[in-house]
Amino acid sequence: MKAARIVRPKEPLQVQDLETPKPKGSQVLVKVLASGVCHSDIHLWEGGYEGPEGQFLKTTDRGVKYPVTPGHEIAGSIEAISEESQSLFAKGDKVLVYPWVGEGTCPACRIGEENLCDKPRSLGIYVDGGYADHVLVPSYRYLVKIGDEDEEVDNLGINEAATLSCSALTAYNAVKNANLRPDDNLVVVGAGGLGLMAMQLAKAVTGAKIIAMDLEDEKLKQARKDGHADYTVNSKKEDPVKTVMELTDKMGADAVIDFVNASKTVETDMQILRRRAKVVLVGLYGGELKLNLVTMPTRAYRLIGSYTGSLSDLTELVSLAKRKIIKPLVSDRFKLDQATEALSKLKEGKIMGRGVINP
Amino acid sequence: MKAARIVRPKEPLQVQDLETPKPKGSQVLVKVLASGVCHSDIHLWEGGYEGPEGQFLKTTDRGVKYPVTPGHEIAGSIEAISEESQSLFAKGDKVLVYPWVGEGTCPACRIGEENLCDKPRSLGIYVDGGYADHVLVPSYRYLVKIGDEDEEVDNLGINEAATLSCSALTAYNAVKNANLRPDDNLVVVGAGGLGLMAMQLAKAVTGAKIIAMDLEDEKLKQARKDGHADYTVNSKKEDPVKTVMELTDKMGADAVIDFVNASKTVETDMQILRRRAKVVLVGLYGGELKLNLVTMPTRAYRLIGSYTGSLSDLTELVSLAKRKIIKPLVSDRFKLDQATEALSKLKEGKIMGRGVINP
Amino acid sequence: MKAARIVRPKEPLQVQDLETPKPKGSQVLVKVLASGVCHSDIHLWEGGYEGPEGQFLKTTDRGVKYPVTPGHEIAGSIEAISEESQSLFAKGDKVLVYPWVGEGTCPACRIGEENLCDKPRSLGIYVDGGYADHVLVPSYRYLVKIGDEDEEVDNLGINEAATLSCSALTAYNAVKNANLRPDDNLVVVGAGGLGLMAMQLAKAVTGAKIIAMDLEDEKLKQARKDGHADYTVNSKKEDPVKTVMELTDKMGADAVIDFVNASKTVETDMQILRRRAKVVLVGLYGGELKLNLVTMPTRAYRLIGSYTGSLSDLTELVSLAKRKIIKPLVSDRFKLDQATEALSKLKEGKIMGRGVINP
Amino acid sequence: MKAARIVRPKEPLQVQDLETPKPKGSQVLVKVLASGVCHSDIHLWEGGYEGPEGQFLKTTDRGVKYPVTPGHEIAGSIEAISEESQSLFAKGDKVLVYPWVGEGTCPACRIGEENLCDKPRSLGIYVDGGYADHVLVPSYRYLVKIGDEDEEVDNLGINEAATLSCSALTAYNAVKNANLRPDDNLVVVGAGGLGLMAMQLAKAVTGAKIIAMDLEDEKLKQARKDGHADYTVNSKKEDPVKTVMELTDKMGADAVIDFVNASKTVETDMQILRRRAKVVLVGLYGGELKLNLVTMPTRAYRLIGSYTGSLSDLTELVSLAKRKIIKPLVSDRFKLDQATEALSKLKEGKIMGRGVINP
Repeated sequence: MKAARIVRPKEPLQVQDLETPKPKGSQVLVKVLASGVCHSDIHLWEGGYEGPEGQFLKTTDRGVKYPVTPGHEIAGSIEAISEESQSLFAKGDKVLVYPWVGEGTCPACRIGEENLCDKPRSLGIYVDGGYADHVLVPSYRYLVKIGDEDEEVDNLGINEAATLSCSALTAYNAVKNANLRPDDNLVVVGAGGLGLMAMQLAKAVTGAKIIAMDLEDEKLKQARKDGHADYTVNSKKEDPVKTVMELTDKMGADAVIDFVNASKTVETDMQILRRRAKVVLVGLYGGELKLNLVTMPTRAYRLIGSYTGSLSDLTELVSLAKRKIIKPLVSDRFKLDQATEALSKLKEGKIMGRGVINP
Repeated sequence: MKAARIVRPKEPLQVQDLETPKPKGSQVLVKVLASGVCHSDIHLWEGGYEGPEGQFLKTTDRGVKYPVTPGHEIAGSIEAISEESQSLFAKGDKVLVYPWVGEGTCPACRIGEENLCDKPRSLGIYVDGGYADHVLVPSYRYLVKIGDEDEEVDNLGINEAATLSCSALTAYNAVKNANLRPDDNLVVVGAGGLGLMAMQLAKAVTGAKIIAMDLEDEKLKQARKDGHADYTVNSKKEDPVKTVMELTDKMGADAVIDFVNASKTVETDMQILRRRAKVVLVGLYGGELKLNLVTMPTRAYRLIGSYTGSLSDLTELVSLAKRKIIKPLVSDRFKLDQATEALSKLKEGKIMGRGVINP
Repeated sequence: MKAARIVRPKEPLQVQDLETPKPKGSQVLVKVLASGVCHSDIHLWEGGYEGPEGQFLKTTDRGVKYPVTPGHEIAGSIEAISEESQSLFAKGDKVLVYPWVGEGTCPACRIGEENLCDKPRSLGIYVDGGYADHVLVPSYRYLVKIGDEDEEVDNLGINEAATLSCSALTAYNAVKNANLRPDDNLVVVGAGGLGLMAMQLAKAVTGAKIIAMDLEDEKLKQARKDGHADYTVNSKKEDPVKTVMELTDKMGADAVIDFVNASKTVETDMQILRRRAKVVLVGLYGGELKLNLVTMPTRAYRLIGSYTGSLSDLTELVSLAKRKIIKPLVSDRFKLDQATEALSKLKEGKIMGRGVINP
Repeated sequence: MKAARIVRPKEPLQVQDLETPKPKGSQVLVKVLASGVCHSDIHLWEGGYEGPEGQFLKTTDRGVKYPVTPGHEIAGSIEAISEESQSLFAKGDKVLVYPWVGEGTCPACRIGEENLCDKPRSLGIYVDGGYADHVLVPSYRYLVKIGDEDEEVDNLGINEAATLSCSALTAYNAVKNANLRPDDNLVVVGAGGLGLMAMQLAKAVTGAKIIAMDLEDEKLKQARKDGHADYTVNSKKEDPVKTVMELTDKMGADAVIDFVNASKTVETDMQILRRRAKVVLVGLYGGELKLNLVTMPTRAYRLIGSYTGSLSDLTELVSLAKRKIIKPLVSDRFKLDQATEALSKLKEGKIMGRGVINP
């Protein structure tokens, strides 16, 4: 099999010939049809990311070992299957792979929240992933069937499907963590891919009023166009605090989902909150917040860190996407030997929706 | 009627003769038998408290008007009752007053969380309270019956009852917000009145393992003595981070309830957390926390501000206290004309349990 | 003031001249602009309803006293207001009245679920209601503001608003009790007014797949037309069990909401359930179910009785209706002196949507 | 390896020599130290059980294949382990086996509720279980570590441990399903092994008041002795409805957990309910209930079928048992060749606590 691998951080990825693994026990070999290109792949490629006070947080300190095959948004078809799962899956089945594999016995894993495992074994990060023509999935349990062998993955393209397992899943978990009611005012900070998907999802399953906030009119226009944002705020052009207070009858937002999560955005978040409000922190931009501690109890605020979603959440997303209630947006397609180009383009901000590799 | 009132901040309280109010509509006149003396009464007396960066946050800016009668932990007997509530209460009934009255139509009030109302009308803060021989309660709905006229408030002294409506209620809501499971490790920061009550409550209704943390051995001894804390940590004498990590098999705490909520304690809190852990912030000590934003999503942490409890919570507390499952501790008793002395003594840290005024 | 009253069960209603009440304490006098005509008003008019084994269950045994003014779906404008609520409401404000008033101190009332109070004081049942030009509301807390004095009740007609407080509220609470996820299959039994509203609501806030079941093609057509039902089943023409099993990949429904709740419908419900499924019982048709007890634990089924909704739910409904996310259907309008005619017409099944009295 | 197997229903079990399986993939071979003898083993032995209207429901119709090795309450030590799990477990580790294995991809399995799987693969029922000296566990994920190799299973005997995975787990899940608050009145019907454990658990983690109901004074005495029941009712000697109404101030119970679940007990349950009350149905006695359908919505009752518990629940139980907060009761011990005797004795009602086989 062929795989585009990061051999050493910061160097171009190498397409290597590897031995195709043979699935044992409950493992499954999946032929990769589409593998999404995610911002966090850039951190993996660069060997780490900027932490607070200019520190560089190395991926190897978190357990990553190079060479590694990136790619955690994987859709494909079953190539080889163990006896154990034959009543559930057949060779050729179109499947989505849940990449957030946990070690299996921590409290999070025990309730199906492997995305929050104490010792994660995620595909495409700690274990070889989807920038390859094949991927070994540790158990059939991590598969979500999206179509039969001869199916065109009904109503849901294979590329679009791939993006559900990280981009949409992170947005969905954030929306769930906001725990919205129909008369809530929700502010979504950052109208990029995740923010737009969060608005689609909030519209589909909560009934809340949505205020989109971003620095770019183009993105806000997109948010409005699909009818997902009820209101938009360009925080570069107008005072975001004043505008949100006006839009909420001076009460403030009931919830904010921040897909940037930088010092500056969260400082603003804290000024637009109604009593009892939640701030769901999702973005990995980072930095520090000077948090006024006394306001936490007196105003009954909640700051909620939100990190991708569970396998159960993914199943729900597949259901919504198949019925076109949500529509993932794939804008760029690459071949396997263009993996370096894909990551570079993403890093330079030149991919508007989501990029996907078709090996 | 007589009331010990704050006429002007920082001056001694004056015992004034006021006209005894006549209850109209759903109002009830309660004869005060015991009124707890709370730390927040000191803020009311001083006209405000220290905010971040040395600012003085004035109570008048939050809507307090002087003169005002303090006292929000009120137990007494019904003196006069309206027609509307005669099927529910009788003259002479022993009652506990829920002081966290809301305006009634905000989302919090609509679900019975008046403690988190957008525009609170709390007794003893915005409206005259219990440092008096009588208090006017805005509706019979805010009463919890604790005994009949001729009863000795079965199993629950009237002074102990009074302390349930703020001290114990705040502890209880914090325990509820921690949402504990029996195999969770809970760290309680601050083993004073609230912390000890929180340990009693966590023991009674969660099954979690409890680690008490404080600077004073005396308090930790108390925490252990009642069998409520499984372990104790003196953070002055030992490294709290190292000790908690050892006590939790290097995993960290599943939840921390911080009854101090100062920069220093919360900085420590953030270093002893297991992935997915919650920090419940209760104390009003204040200051700032430099919060590392990226760890919030990657570690899936939750910071939860927790402010007193609901009327429903209070009903549950009364049930637990009547059955001696929890035991509020009253250490000092004062007369109405000793109100200034009571507040001074509390401010100087000379009240070990809870002080109560018996008018 | 004038009111159309049931003086004695089964006799025509009498329009009587009554003294207009003067609001005391927290009471509010509301000028009635629209009052919905509900099936349960017929029970009140007939003095009871058929129970199991042919017994007649009398309303007077449940605490109803005649004469009484029916009408619990009330929209109007504030005519007179007490001092207590002047910061929240103004004379002339358009309001919706929450009629499910509780006695205020039972566990249900303490958490804002007055609809489930131990000793209800509901308007239009135990206390005079909205078949009148004025109604006395026991507290401003039971009002939901829907517009200013001079407003046309923006985007939401006054007649449509009225129907939210029982018809839509019952449907909403049922949907909430079904606790649906986006990949759930929901069967709605009965595509009348409540069923259609439940489908609208389930579509708006859950993402679940909806199967409508009824005996009449006309109603099923309506369910499909609005795009709220994904599938429909005419249980007179096709085998409902077989059809639902086919529509759900032989797994069965994850939830059923039964707006009929008769022996026959619930017997069918029990045969179309997936393991872990819920049956939400709402209708008042009645009868008996022979429940196989052992299947309850082995299949982990839940039968959930669902009775109207809370004041908080009503606030959410108003928000959804104002934004046209749900659209209540009013089909017939009556004057106050046509109250008897309205009830007769409803009883004979001649009102297709909802009838409303405009006094 | 040796195993006591049911070769044909109703015949004595045969101790057979089988080939010891070699664990592949994520499988683990566990040396059985203790295997509990459960009432449901009798159904397996008899080939089925009595359904409603005298039908005999055959186990083979539910997917059981004979010969089969019973035993689903298994505690033992790890004998052989796969590479995959070596960082989590070591040979010799004392473990408890979670037997309620699911197929892994249904909605229940996805959230860690494999006990409620659509297509269960439970050990000791569909797959060979613990009446043997060794058992093959399908994945290390189903193990809960209870001690190191050389440990005496600290504070928790190996026999007691075994009973946690069905008897205590079923009781625990029932208590969780009752969702109790400290001021709730809980009636536990059936003070046998499960009922007594449910009372211990309700005491430990809910604070509710407990009323035990049984036909035998001896069992009620036991319930009272441990201080777990606050009150007891002998429903043979006194009118259970009248007594419960008196004990609950005429309000009725907030929740009933019925460990018998026969027509007669559930008929009584339905007469002692407060509005909004839950009846948790656990027992497998069976029969039919004539359910009055209209009271379900008007009284807002909930009937909840409860079937054993999740792996996460089991982890919590182990934590409680290790700290002696709950104390499982083992009364009888057998050797492997006494399996038939053990089942016979249980069937005849001669085992008072729990019987355990030590191979």
